[in-house]
Amino acid sequence: MAIPIAEELAKKQREISVAEFFERNKHLLGFDNKRKALLTVIKEAVDNSLDACEEAKILPEVKVEIIEMSEERFRIIVEDNGPGIVKKQIPNIFAQLLYGSKFHTMKQSRGQQGIGISAAVLYAQLTTGRPVKIVSKISPDHPAHYYELHIDTTNNKPEIMKEGDIPWKKDKGTKVELDIEATYQKGDQSVDQYLKATAIVNPHATIIYTNPKAEQLVLTRATDKLPKEAVAIKPHPYGVELGIMLKMLRNSDSRTMQSFFCNEFSRVGPQTAKEILDKAKISPQQKPGEIVLAQVEMIMKAIRDTKIIAPPTDCIVPIGKELLEKGLKKEVNAEFYVTVSRSPEVYRGIPFVVEAGLAYGGEQPGDESVKLLRFANRVPLLYQQSSCACFKSVIQTNWKPYGLQQSQSALPVGPLTLAVHLASVWPPFTSEAKEALAHYPEIIKEMKLALQEAGRQLGIYVNKRKKAKEEQERVSIFENYIPEVASALSRITGKSKDSINASMKRMLAKSKEFIEQNQVRLQGEKDD
Amino acid sequence: MAIPIAEELAKKQREISVAEFFERNKHLLGFDNKRKALLTVIKEAVDNSLDACEEAKILPEVKVEIIEMSEERFRIIVEDNGPGIVKKQIPNIFAQLLYGSKFHTMKQSRGQQGIGISAAVLYAQLTTGRPVKIVSKISPDHPAHYYELHIDTTNNKPEIMKEGDIPWKKDKGTKVELDIEATYQKGDQSVDQYLKATAIVNPHATIIYTNPKAEQLVLTRATDKLPKEAVAIKPHPYGVELGIMLKMLRNSDSRTMQSFFCNEFSRVGPQTAKEILDKAKISPQQKPGEIVLAQVEMIMKAIRDTKIIAPPTDCIVPIGKELLEKGLKKEVNAEFYVTVSRSPEVYRGIPFVVEAGLAYGGEQPGDESVKLLRFANRVPLLYQQSSCACFKSVIQTNWKPYGLQQSQSALPVGPLTLAVHLASVWPPFTSEAKEALAHYPEIIKEMKLALQEAGRQLGIYVNKRKKAKEEQERVSIFENYIPEVASALSRITGKSKDSINASMKRMLAKSKEFIEQNQVRLQGEKDD
Repeated sequence: MAIPIAEELAKKQREISVAEFFERNKHLLGFDNKRKALLTVIKEAVDNSLDACEEAKILPEVKVEIIEMSEERFRIIVEDNGPGIVKKQIPNIFAQLLYGSKFHTMKQSRGQQGIGISAAVLYAQLTTGRPVKIVSKISPDHPAHYYELHIDTTNNKPEIMKEGDIPWKKDKGTKVELDIEATYQKGDQSVDQYLKATAIVNPHATIIYTNPKAEQLVLTRATDKLPKEAVAIKPHPYGVELGIMLKMLRNSDSRTMQSFFCNEFSRVGPQTAKEILDKAKISPQQKPGEIVLAQVEMIMKAIRDTKIIAPPTDCIVPIGKELLEKGLKKEVNAEFYVTVSRSPEVYRGIPFVVEAGLAYGGEQPGDESVKLLRFANRVPLLYQQSSCACFKSVIQTNWKPYGLQQSQSALPVGPLTLAVHLASVWPPFTSEAKEALAHYPEIIKEMKLALQEAGRQLGIYVNKRKKAKEEQERVSIFENYIPEVASALSRITGKSKDSINASMKRMLAKSKEFIEQNQVRLQGEKDD
Repeated sequence: MAIPIAEELAKKQREISVAEFFERNKHLLGFDNKRKALLTVIKEAVDNSLDACEEAKILPEVKVEIIEMSEERFRIIVEDNGPGIVKKQIPNIFAQLLYGSKFHTMKQSRGQQGIGISAAVLYAQLTTGRPVKIVSKISPDHPAHYYELHIDTTNNKPEIMKEGDIPWKKDKGTKVELDIEATYQKGDQSVDQYLKATAIVNPHATIIYTNPKAEQLVLTRATDKLPKEAVAIKPHPYGVELGIMLKMLRNSDSRTMQSFFCNEFSRVGPQTAKEILDKAKISPQQKPGEIVLAQVEMIMKAIRDTKIIAPPTDCIVPIGKELLEKGLKKEVNAEFYVTVSRSPEVYRGIPFVVEAGLAYGGEQPGDESVKLLRFANRVPLLYQQSSCACFKSVIQTNWKPYGLQQSQSALPVGPLTLAVHLASVWPPFTSEAKEALAHYPEIIKEMKLALQEAGRQLGIYVNKRKKAKEEQERVSIFENYIPEVASALSRITGKSKDSINASMKRMLAKSKEFIEQNQVRLQGEKDD
């Protein structure tokens, strides 16, 4: 009997570690090219620093330094004043993909997946072979721990190259150092732009940035108030899929279905639990572990047929109208600002808030497409603009009534910076690199409403400004003609040319006063 | 001493399984919506069947059946005549993500990552809670093994719900059955379109498809010749990154650097190895395990500075000009076909081949954008068209000289179907869902050259056809006027109207003969 081919094929079948997978597919994590790689590494480190500070209720001060080591090779150092990381977790957090604290917690944060910073370490290792160097200290009474780590990609486990305690002047905080292959360039999609945009949506953070030319940029915080703390919520029944419900039932410690529903979901009290269970024809006393698939299907239908109030929204922390405006004013030099923060909405059981801001005029060019700044959970999104829900909602908004030019399916044209922010427990990114938001209709709808709300205020300002400008033009034309008109009138009426001249100038002065008052009023509205 | 906050935070830090990760991020795997989910599940199963048959040198016969179970719930059954899967590997292959045979092998195949079919199982489990059902048999002398499997997502391990041997009339093969939440719709991006496109680029495969309306479509193979077998190659030095080189050195069994280079790379013989090592100032006798990072950097530079011939190309198996045309003719009803298969090229040490086909005229609408069929390793790509290198290369080609209309940055307009195929060891997909090819300049360049080559032939045909049409029009106008012209001439010359009429008709007949010959010639060229 011949050996079946399947036996031969089986010899090659084996497990692939997630680190090997991403090592080969590094472009999925934002490492498509050398310029983007620089940004991605810094973004992951800064996001982690800001998350850590906020979790520990510390006003963040993050230092970012880029040093050019040789051609296309850079050292990146990111240091924060956060809570630090306990010794035994340092290797896991930095040198194991899919390791973190946020995946199983339902509240707004920048990180989600436990991939970001270890992906940066993976990229450093792949391109320069150098380990990541970490210093972290959790209190003045603890020593600072120093680590040099590689990722064992075959097993997706940390490999400790060096460890020890070292002196560090800081009370607490974490410092990460990575050597990577990269290129540095200013302008759009650059580190500089990312940090400036970060400052806009994180007005409570101070960022001290030293670029490869050793130029230092200090982005000072605009407020000393930390954002409100996000509170983790339980899943809402509307957002739970059948397979997840099954898993929750199987893993539940609750002794009855009634308590299962009350303990493990948002917004399900005894009354709602009873209603769901009645509709599903399940006894409130039944044990969760006994529920069979057919019953789960009944439960899913019963949930759809039951009115359950929307999930609580303290799991998300919008920036707020005032702080978003402060942030915009700090980084965009314009003459008129307006910001909008919408009320929370829900998609698939997940709460979210949309915020929008406009900065109009000033030195911004009037004949180019508006500048669109996109944000998700206070993180700037710099790539994949045209695939993003933010972009779609801007081009689907009619900007002509607000005084801007716009061709079909295009960004409007005018001296305007537009900021759109989505705050959510789970922003629906289109890829692991978290570069664009998926086109969820609920989210696009909210974004359009926010843009329209801001747009209407912009429209009022732009139209008033236009009128004031026209009046001023009329006045100055008139002023130029006064001498000629006066001499003509003098010939016709026989009155003295000088007296006519003088009375016309008085008339003009009154009219100017009126226009200026108008402008002051405009100014006042702008400052509201 | 207060407990540092870091201790508190550490409690939540833990490992995330890759199955949990994709369970939450299923849109990354092509499960964004219910319609696409149906396609993705079938695509993953059919891709696996075709890969298995080809590896075992079996002419594939794949049966695909979709049964509507209830509203938005479908049963999908895919059955092949492939080599089957050995018993102990069945659970791993179907119920563990990142498990497979192709990740570590450098040759062309449809599957790569060991994610596809287990992702489909994950989706079924998530939406209907049902296990995947598998029957597989590896030879007539073996029993057929039956499995019902779930994925334990917390650990990314198979969970066997049922197993046993069952009678099965087949000699060998595998059958997969999945219940999923989905919607069925014909048209663009549908299962129907995917299977038809699959038939075009797999003319050696027979596909028997039964849709939810119980209509059967048999796509019969156009050739009995299996594609040439792809031969696995070793990595080419130009395609190896520093981190990978380091890993290869550390894991190498070779006793000297000289043999390391000769044994573990493509196209490195003793002479080239010596040249690289000389330039890197490393002794050919040194042990790979002793090489330090600074030396690896020297090696990387030495490789860049050494001329090494391109990798062998028997790791890729293009469809070929003739078979691609056969495939196109089978599925697209046109009047003129032209296909091009380019010579192999290399990007980052990875060989690839671009092929292109055009089908012009027939019943295709002349006033719409051309239909673009995109393929990677014989798999149709149906989503993310505008992000794909194929799309970019079509819009960057100037189609006007080839007789088509075209606006800037748009697909040309005309009665044309365009097929672009990339065959490669590692097609650079933009996401795990493998929907679009990344914009590698080397690949786009080859695609444009292929399109231009095909386009020129199209241009000749279209222009000749245009001329022939114009001549024919002139002839028929003349024919209509013969009686009147004849009677006028008869009045002028005094000759009999009938004889003039007859001689003019003779003249016309000759001219018609000439045009017809011309058309036959045109026809002949078309059939070349």
